[in-house]
Parts: sequence; C-alpha cells; structure tokens
Amino acid sequence: MDISKLIKQIQIKKSFLCVGLDTDLAKIPEHLHQQPNPIFEFNRQIIDATAKYAVAYKPNIAFYEAIGKEGWEALKQTIDYLNSQYPEIFTTADAKRGDIGNTASKYAQAFFDDLNFDAITVAPYMGKDSVEPFLAYQNKHTILLALTSNEGAFDFQTQTLKNKDSLYQTVLKTSQTWKNSENLMYVVGATKAEYFKEIRQIIPHSFLLVPGVGAQGGSLKEVCQYGLTKDCGLLVNSSRGIIYASNGKDFAQAAELKAKGLQEEMAIYL
Amino acid sequence: MDISKLIKQIQIKKSFLCVGLDTDLAKIPEHLHQQPNPIFEFNRQIIDATAKYAVAYKPNIAFYEAIGKEGWEALKQTIDYLNSQYPEIFTTADAKRGDIGNTASKYAQAFFDDLNFDAITVAPYMGKDSVEPFLAYQNKHTILLALTSNEGAFDFQTQTLKNKDSLYQTVLKTSQTWKNSENLMYVVGATKAEYFKEIRQIIPHSFLLVPGVGAQGGSLKEVCQYGLTKDCGLLVNSSRGIIYASNGKDFAQAAELKAKGLQEEMAIYL
Repeated sequence: MDISKLIKQIQIKKSFLCVGLDTDLAKIPEHLHQQPNPIFEFNRQIIDATAKYAVAYKPNIAFYEAIGKEGWEALKQTIDYLNSQYPEIFTTADAKRGDIGNTASKYAQAFFDDLNFDAITVAPYMGKDSVEPFLAYQNKHTILLALTSNEGAFDFQTQTLKNKDSLYQTVLKTSQTWKNSENLMYVVGATKAEYFKEIRQIIPHSFLLVPGVGAQGGSLKEVCQYGLTKDCGLLVNSSRGIIYASNGKDFAQAAELKAKGLQEEMAIYL
Repeated sequence: MDISKLIKQIQIKKSFLCVGLDTDLAKIPEHLHQQPNPIFEFNRQIIDATAKYAVAYKPNIAFYEAIGKEGWEALKQTIDYLNSQYPEIFTTADAKRGDIGNTASKYAQAFFDDLNFDAITVAPYMGKDSVEPFLAYQNKHTILLALTSNEGAFDFQTQTLKNKDSLYQTVLKTSQTWKNSENLMYVVGATKAEYFKEIRQIIPHSFLLVPGVGAQGGSLKEVCQYGLTKDCGLLVNSSRGIIYASNGKDFAQAAELKAKGLQEEMAIYL
C-alpha cells in the first residue's frame, strides 16, 4: 500500500488506531469453540465490528504459530479476509523477524508475497543486510524495532554508546542511511512517551507504530503531544484492551465500543 | 535434552557438526518435485545420509514459512522424524524470535511444546523479559544472538558502549544474570573467529552455535583454536555447503561426503 492511502484513511476516519489481533484460543469466548475455525471466526467478527474506527490491523504471528498448521491457516484466512473485504486497511504482520540476507529474503517472501501484508515488524540487531531485503519491496513497509514498550527495553536499547547516542537512537540514525529507507517505519512504545520528543528530532516524518497503550499502561495523550506530524505519523496499537473487552457473546460489540472510544479520543488530537 | 546427552554424542561421534536444513524448493533436486512432500523427502534423505557425522540439526524457519501452510507441515514432519528416528540428536529451530513476555511465551510454546525442538535461537534486542519465557523451560536451550556471521554485525553488535564493552559483550554479560541463564547458549559467527578469545573470557563454558563455516567463509580451525572447551562447547553449523553439495540424484551421498569431511576435521581438533 502506498503511504498516501494510509494517510487518506486516517483523515477520513479521524483515527490512527491499529487493532492488534493477538488471538489466543484460551481467551476467546466459549461459544466460538463450536465453530470449525474459532480463531478466524473471532478475528472476522472483531474486524467487522471495529473496521469503522480502525485504519490498521496487526496480527502478532506468535499467537498463530503457537497452534501450528491450523494457526498458520487462520492467519492466512484473516489476511485474505482483510485484503478482500477491507482493501483500504493497512495490514502489518507483527513478526519481529531478523536474519542474514538470503534468509531475510525468505521471510519477506512469506509475509509480503505469500500472505500479502502491507508491512512487517523487523528486529535491528543483525544490521543492514538483515533489513534491506524487506526494504526492497515497493509499496511495502518495514517497521523496525527502535524503542519497545517492555521493561527489557532498558537492558540494551537505552544504553549509551561511545558516540553519546543511545542504541535506539543509533538504530534510528543508521537505518536512515540504508537503501530504500523511505520504506521504513519504527516501533516506539507508548510506555516511553517522554522519549518521543528526541525521536522526532531524528526522524521528524516517519510513521511510528506505537504499542503499549491500554493493557501496558501508555498514555495516548502524551504520545500525541510529541509524536504527531502533519500527516499524523502515528499508528497507535491496542490489542488486549479491544479484542478481550468481553469474553461473552457480546465480545464484538464490546470491542466496537472500545475501538470507538479510542477513535473519538484520537479525533480530538488530530 | 539434558546438555550431558549432547556432550556424550559429541564424544561418541567425534563431531560437533550441526547440519542446517535451510531447505528451499527452488534449490532441491528436480526429481524430488514428483514426491507428495518434496521438502520433507529432501530433509529425510539428508538426515539419513548425514546423521552418522552430525550431532545436531537446525532448520531455519524462514525457509518453511516462505511456502506457507505446506512449509509448516514439512517442518513438523521433519522435527517429528528427527525426534522419533534419532532421539539422541540435538534439534534447534533457527527462528531468531524476540517479543514481549506474553508473546515470547507463545513462541516458546510453538517451538518447545508444539514442535518439540530442544533449542531455539532468540534475538536479544528486547531484553530480559523477551528471553526469560524461553529460559523457563527445563532441558530446553535458548541460543541468544551475540555476534552474528553477517556484515551487518558491525552496524550495532560491535559498537562500543559507554561502559567500554561492545554491545555483543554487554549482551553476553547481562544475559548471564537472567533467571535460568544456565539454559543459555550463544550464536557467534565463524566469520568473526578473532573475537572468540575475548568471548571465552566472558563465557568460558557456554555452548556456542557457530554459523558461517563454508559458504560464508569462516575457518573451522580458527574457531576451534579459541572456541573449544573441555566439554567441546561448540556446535559448528554448515547449511548450504552440505545440503546443496549436489543437486542431482546423488544429493544425499554428496551431502554425506561433505558431512564426513567436516567430521574428520573436527575429530582432529577434539
């Protein structure tokens, strides 16, 4: 997807909400287990209920791999459903892959060609040749981990290097020199809102995928204060807070209400 | 698998060879494409031909994900075949995963419970809580990326931090403080053989998984010079150099010869 289409959706829906489809068999409503494919059925109903308020969906691949071949099948059905029913929606595989060049090409093939996602999250530890095979795809987006929402972000990402920058700042600056870096976006956790100001000094225009609002405790208001750009520049993700708002038969309506609430708050900040 | 079983295998076979099953439909011999499951058939014949000389197998998950559901099925058949026919063999999923705690648990479930690998490669960028869910499994091994074999290793891994250590040294030291760190092994590329001396000062006893011998140009002799411990402490991987030694009907015999050659060289250094 061309980035201008995403920006247009954000303007139309007055929303920069990404719904995280971290779908866990153990957490979905009881009554769905009678369906032939409960994971896909759950996703389909969540998508139909929230698509008015969301511009992006992000299945985390771990939840699908955890149940093997059936999980992969449910992932494929979900992305096919999104691409056919909601072609205006931006889709991201939250996969956090990273491997040497010839292997990275295989992951790019898996998520961009076979599954046809618009974007994938990628880990930076292995450097340039582990990321450029993803960047080579036109109109596909590579969302590089910069500063993540978890406690472990302080183990390495915020460590200061000899050049005075922290590791995540070095990741931002170095990756901007890579081939096709215009296809880069970055993961920056909402739980680190105080860092957004300095991040915007390094990458003033890049889109940021922001997890950590909701269950993880990040504040939407603080993220917007320093993170918003003239084209919005943010995709704020909520997973558990939306998809598990209820585990009864009303789960889709409950998810819709949560998504609507976030969209309305987003409309104020836009 | 208890680590003592791996050490015993190394002593019996006089080998610390790991065969990388980076199986690519575009590269396997023509005649296998008539089989109902060419990927598994290729893997099975490679395993049967090389198991005398190898102590470990390591499918790289990217190659399986690249072909979707059929790939996942072939991966499952391959690990099931290894576990049933060669229970003494150490199996590693080369997956390089890394995500926040609840998601990392799902990846651990996928590779340790569902697929029943003995080990998985994991990326350190997201820190402690992204790795500890893997470490929590008894008799399972978490192989953390430290210094990888590719050019991109110099982008971030070898950068010096304010504490004077490089990032990969900090990864080694910090990870040793994590809960259940006795279940850690590390990836160190053979292409960086000159670094093994200082790595062994930080982690004198840990097993190292060493890619980069063969197609990537690393020297087995140099790796052994500084990397070997009294329990061996090394698993040296070769993928393309073994599995694609021939793309004719003799591919399995050609792979056997390559594996035998490496084993014989290893026996000298042990």
